[in-house]
Amino acid sequence: MNVEIITIGDELLLGQVVDTNSAWMGAELAKEGFRVHGITSIGDEADEIKEAISRLLQRADIVLITGGLGPTNDDITLQTLCEFFGIGMVFSETVYKDVERFLSGRAGVMNELNRNQAMVPAEATVISNTVGTAPITWFERNGKVLVSMPGVPSEMKQVMSAEIIPRLKAHFKTPSLQHRHIIISGYTESALALKLKEWEDALPSYLKLAYLPQIGIMRLRLTATLDDQKELSRVLDDEIEKIKPILGDAIFAFEDVTPEVVIGRLLRDKKLTLATAESCTGGYIAHLITSVAGSSDYFKGSVVAYTNDIKVNLLSVSEDDIATYGAVSQTVVEQMAHGARERLKADVAAATSGVAGPTGGTAEKPVGMVWIAVATPDKVVSQCFQFGQFRDRNIVRSAIAALAMLKKEIG
Amino acid sequence: MNVEIITIGDELLLGQVVDTNSAWMGAELAKEGFRVHGITSIGDEADEIKEAISRLLQRADIVLITGGLGPTNDDITLQTLCEFFGIGMVFSETVYKDVERFLSGRAGVMNELNRNQAMVPAEATVISNTVGTAPITWFERNGKVLVSMPGVPSEMKQVMSAEIIPRLKAHFKTPSLQHRHIIISGYTESALALKLKEWEDALPSYLKLAYLPQIGIMRLRLTATLDDQKELSRVLDDEIEKIKPILGDAIFAFEDVTPEVVIGRLLRDKKLTLATAESCTGGYIAHLITSVAGSSDYFKGSVVAYTNDIKVNLLSVSEDDIATYGAVSQTVVEQMAHGARERLKADVAAATSGVAGPTGGTAEKPVGMVWIAVATPDKVVSQCFQFGQFRDRNIVRSAIAALAMLKKEIG
Repeated sequence: MNVEIITIGDELLLGQVVDTNSAWMGAELAKEGFRVHGITSIGDEADEIKEAISRLLQRADIVLITGGLGPTNDDITLQTLCEFFGIGMVFSETVYKDVERFLSGRAGVMNELNRNQAMVPAEATVISNTVGTAPITWFERNGKVLVSMPGVPSEMKQVMSAEIIPRLKAHFKTPSLQHRHIIISGYTESALALKLKEWEDALPSYLKLAYLPQIGIMRLRLTATLDDQKELSRVLDDEIEKIKPILGDAIFAFEDVTPEVVIGRLLRDKKLTLATAESCTGGYIAHLITSVAGSSDYFKGSVVAYTNDIKVNLLSVSEDDIATYGAVSQTVVEQMAHGARERLKADVAAATSGVAGPTGGTAEKPVGMVWIAVATPDKVVSQCFQFGQFRDRNIVRSAIAALAMLKKEIG
Repeated sequence: MNVEIITIGDELLLGQVVDTNSAWMGAELAKEGFRVHGITSIGDEADEIKEAISRLLQRADIVLITGGLGPTNDDITLQTLCEFFGIGMVFSETVYKDVERFLSGRAGVMNELNRNQAMVPAEATVISNTVGTAPITWFERNGKVLVSMPGVPSEMKQVMSAEIIPRLKAHFKTPSLQHRHIIISGYTESALALKLKEWEDALPSYLKLAYLPQIGIMRLRLTATLDDQKELSRVLDDEIEKIKPILGDAIFAFEDVTPEVVIGRLLRDKKLTLATAESCTGGYIAHLITSVAGSSDYFKGSVVAYTNDIKVNLLSVSEDDIATYGAVSQTVVEQMAHGARERLKADVAAATSGVAGPTGGTAEKPVGMVWIAVATPDKVVSQCFQFGQFRDRNIVRSAIAALAMLKKEIG
């Protein structure tokens, strides 16, 4: 089933908001065998919206639209859809009550702008929005489905998972499709491609391999369609087995999960607790770890030490060693990891100290140079990395490298 | 000048990578008076790519393409462009040398896949990629411009800023366009719209107002085109002056900057240092602050205290008070802020303690309830917020609310 996504909003075109909805929808739909063929972002302009709907309804079975449903004047999606389909709008008592209930639950007050949000298309299925005030509308025309959803990610996600995907599955028959993912750290795309060339060349033709680079990690995706699901599963498992000895230690996971989820599971399984001591990562490792629900079961905390003083007082780093070797050094990062374990009473700890940039580099310690250490009950290991020139990327790469070192030590 | 952006890659449609390029490009282009009219994401399929180029070259003056230039087999953008324009590919010694130089600088090794990246279109301008190995190609046809760039954000950004935008400005004459931004915290979209209704209704017709909601903040954008730039600037300034008394304290900034940049500037101007003590935000405030280059000038560090033990030992919170009032309480969050100031030796400190969710809530302290405190040399202020049910949003909203409270105290 071909899906086209349309995201509506001037803010997307002016770059004031990043469209994260499409990626999330694409991933969720793919799991169910629906394939997104294109994503189109356009402004809050009636003609643009009509042109896109008209063109995309030709080539797709399903058109999913997000955005342009707010209570303000610049939001015109629903009126435009009604014009396109040649239908009127009616006041919905049900939607009005939904909005009222939602706002009262949040101590909000119903106002005339919210009242407008209860105006819905006359000939369409209106789906209840349980987490916001924008209406959700489902149109069926000539066997095709068009859905209009809110652009607020949390509202879109809730209604997609609870209502839209189940309804689409009931309405369409989805093809057989399976994915396998391998998450790898420490390789560039071309080095990995060379390493895997022999294996990749021998893949059966109905298997498709894609390299999905992310900052700090490479995700490989093996996709296949075959009528026999059982046989397909066996073939994919076989290929995954073949890749294991080729990549060895570089493999982070055999499924599409984030490094912080992998680390969380490992800590939970091994009944270990974690602490971090962060200089150049500035709290980003702690943020990644705590972005996982339930992380308080295994995460103790972090000391973000942007000054030498904090390294000395809160992480028990030797003041003399900082003076002698500098904050960005093997001995200091090892003492930070050791100190975090002791002072935050954790089983294992990771520490970072480096030059995030864009300034602060020297000939000896250039921008992008980062020391990372991991302390376990038995030992402290450390490694020096040379990343690039971009501050934001250096922070992310340092954090991912720290998680990869953690995995190696406790995995 | 109408711009259309095409982002290419199966990973975008399968949702494995979020397209952040388009938003960045849209924002940078808007600053220079180029307007993005649409963003189209398609897969690595020759027919799809040709269809999109053909259609978008009709309606746009400029088509900017990112992605599909990697060294692996699934990347076909450049070959497809050559087929579309009916031109051949040639080996470029210059590009080969660029790739070689780039890889040698990163201790990389030139391999045959990288060698393929030196194959470029015969009739096009090849622009040097100084931060990666993918070629950048500029086509001119019938007065229109089409550019093919790498999908890796850091490479795209570098070449857009250094080469593409200057070349586009030289090639096209851009219209007069000005924006003003106002960043506001603590309002919902509809409440803000009602508050501003009178002012908005009185706006001259050549001024356009847009509400750009983000998690935790609302960005207002006032856009205008007028031939007389000086007059336009005066009109915009007048409208901004009118809005000040209406919104008062809720205004975070009068330009399109992030809260962490505003706080950084304030701290620098007032010669103050900052520390944070984070429970439910898990290091996210520290990450925001340290994502700003130069933040080591004013940021001391953070204690991420996911356990009561750390709150007591590293932030000097009273163990008895935690037992009596619970970790999520006014007295504990105030002690955390106070403790962070003292122990991390900062002039001001912000602290958070709340229930991020999705579990851990009680009737008395439900998911989304967050206490935030700010300590200055004179006093400690605190406030209780009730956010929503989503962990990721609660973390961001708590962090932004903490920055807003900081601004109120030191601004």
